[in-house]
Amino acid sequence: MFLRIDHVGIACHNLEESVAFYESTFGLTVVSREVNEEQGVREAMLRVADGGPAALGGSYIQLLEPLSPETAVGKFLAKRGEGVHHVGYGVADVAGALAEIEAKGVRLIDRRPRHGSMGASIAFLHPKDVGGVLTELVEAPRHDS
Amino acid sequence: MFLRIDHVGIACHNLEESVAFYESTFGLTVVSREVNEEQGVREAMLRVADGGPAALGGSYIQLLEPLSPETAVGKFLAKRGEGVHHVGYGVADVAGALAEIEAKGVRLIDRRPRHGSMGASIAFLHPKDVGGVLTELVEAPRHDS
Repeated sequence: MFLRIDHVGIACHNLEESVAFYESTFGLTVVSREVNEEQGVREAMLRVADGGPAALGGSYIQLLEPLSPETAVGKFLAKRGEGVHHVGYGVADVAGALAEIEAKGVRLIDRRPRHGSMGASIAFLHPKDVGGVLTELVEAPRHDS
Repeated sequence: MFLRIDHVGIACHNLEESVAFYESTFGLTVVSREVNEEQGVREAMLRVADGGPAALGGSYIQLLEPLSPETAVGKFLAKRGEGVHHVGYGVADVAGALAEIEAKGVRLIDRRPRHGSMGASIAFLHPKDVGGVLTELVEAPRHDS
């Protein structure tokens, strides 16, 4: 079901400072910046690895700054401090994967795919049913159309 | 510097239960099991993606059960509960990467590479200098010798 580790989502207080750190310390490059009002975040995607022909989509670090303290990431920062917020896995078909996973008894945060970074279709699974890991499924957009 | 997301390390109370969950829910396969006395863990590596020719080594989920409550992972579980413990990135030369990263002012937990999963050379960076993320560098073993 999983094709790759699509990204690790990392909560931070100041997006520009964190981007500068990852760029200067580890040599990563920002490939996308977005504000996602629905998720309450300002974010940057830094490419770690290109996707090969066998795995549509690459691997990224996703840095997340909350738009306000009341957002999910804002509350996470207040409670836990900066650190890993979630893990996203590439799948070929996010709707199909959701159905398969729900049938195994895992609670879904998103019953239907919604808009994610860089045009992806995404959905979150409930961390309480995935060993404390907020888990995201990511279907990369097709580039052949 | 980073070639890939080598693995996400996830702390759990019961390794066999967590392995069974990841296998049955997400279709992953265990490719290695080890007890690492030095790190105080019993662990399993589950393959998410194969390494292509451009990136020696694949991507894995690393499930970690502490050997005792006094270990680093045992203390993590007592404080935070189950969840993401660290993120490991593939590098070509872990000793060279450590020198480069230390020169940029990041504190190292390991000043010299040590033994990691599946024969890799690994080293950890201090999470306080990496935005709260316990960060591991992983040099995969050479298979051409």
